[in-house]
Amino acid sequence: MQLPSTILSQAVDALSTLPGVGKRSALRFALHLLKQPTSEVLQLSESISKLATDIRYCQICHCISDSDICPICASPKRVKSIVCVVENVQDVMAIENTQQYQGLYHVLGGVISPIDGISPRDLNIESLLQRVQQGQPSPVEEVILALPTTMEGDTTNYYLNRQLQPLGVKVTTIARGIAIGDNLEYADEITLGRSIVHRVPFE
Amino acid sequence: MQLPSTILSQAVDALSTLPGVGKRSALRFALHLLKQPTSEVLQLSESISKLATDIRYCQICHCISDSDICPICASPKRVKSIVCVVENVQDVMAIENTQQYQGLYHVLGGVISPIDGISPRDLNIESLLQRVQQGQPSPVEEVILALPTTMEGDTTNYYLNRQLQPLGVKVTTIARGIAIGDNLEYADEITLGRSIVHRVPFE
Repeated sequence: MQLPSTILSQAVDALSTLPGVGKRSALRFALHLLKQPTSEVLQLSESISKLATDIRYCQICHCISDSDICPICASPKRVKSIVCVVENVQDVMAIENTQQYQGLYHVLGGVISPIDGISPRDLNIESLLQRVQQGQPSPVEEVILALPTTMEGDTTNYYLNRQLQPLGVKVTTIARGIAIGDNLEYADEITLGRSIVHRVPFE
Repeated sequence: MQLPSTILSQAVDALSTLPGVGKRSALRFALHLLKQPTSEVLQLSESISKLATDIRYCQICHCISDSDICPICASPKRVKSIVCVVENVQDVMAIENTQQYQGLYHVLGGVISPIDGISPRDLNIESLLQRVQQGQPSPVEEVILALPTTMEGDTTNYYLNRQLQPLGVKVTTIARGIAIGDNLEYADEITLGRSIVHRVPFE
């Protein structure tokens, strides 16, 4: 589709780099923005540029933060001896939304994936080991591995476990099993098998 | 959902004002942008702010343009005696994509809609009448009304026809009828009825 203006065309090209947004949706976004008040469009533009320039990461857990230490790491209400290792910031938000976890986090920033050229050195693993080894800023008694159930996730779990065991810390993983509301007959064999092996006392 | 950073949260709020984008998609966009190179994010931000500040409209047809006169109005190849009246810029692009039209355009910027408080004075109608009346920048022999088939579109068609007829210009509307590929049995009565009344010689 030929656009009548280079400015419009550049905006469409830039907007269509967003995930799941094609040229058609990008054009819809751009034409919508043309009808909005200048102040609102500039606000969108500024909030996007701030993402690139002003965003900071917590020095302890590497989660997105407005300050050097994120609110979770800084909170006196959190259980500081438990650290949950996750792949990314979305996972922190997902677990926080459950309101079931009171410990701290450690965001790896990815999982080990030789195919994508991601080695342990590209992830925030060294700082995790230091947190456990030095007990700084707080002694760690348990590390919960909450990585995705993919080959890469399992590889990372295995790697982390091998590094953490010698440090004398308790290493656990989140429970895998039948999701709430799922039918047994439709569950895959590995999940169902694991849920039987790792059965828990009835409460 | 509580976000760990005000910058992220502001970006999500701003992105979710885009049409069809909810909080969840906006968060996906924002987290995607966080992973992109700074230069790319700033480019997106700049191209959006340019939409608000740098975009211009053709002085003749009111279509989006990079210059005072748009490429269509400026082209020596176009038939300058025919003007197609459309609601908005999208319609110009849609008709251009057909590659069936060689005349000029006139973008109204909307249709008459008393419910939404849009009166003829809010639209680019005065400048259309001037184009026809003064024959500037080129004499107009035919005005094609290509407005949507809604109550508002029909009202606008009626209003424009009444204003244009006294000026001695030929006024036509685009053909309404059965769409290519449609079955007769599923067509609505009004469309099918009109397509019989306005039948054309077989070619």
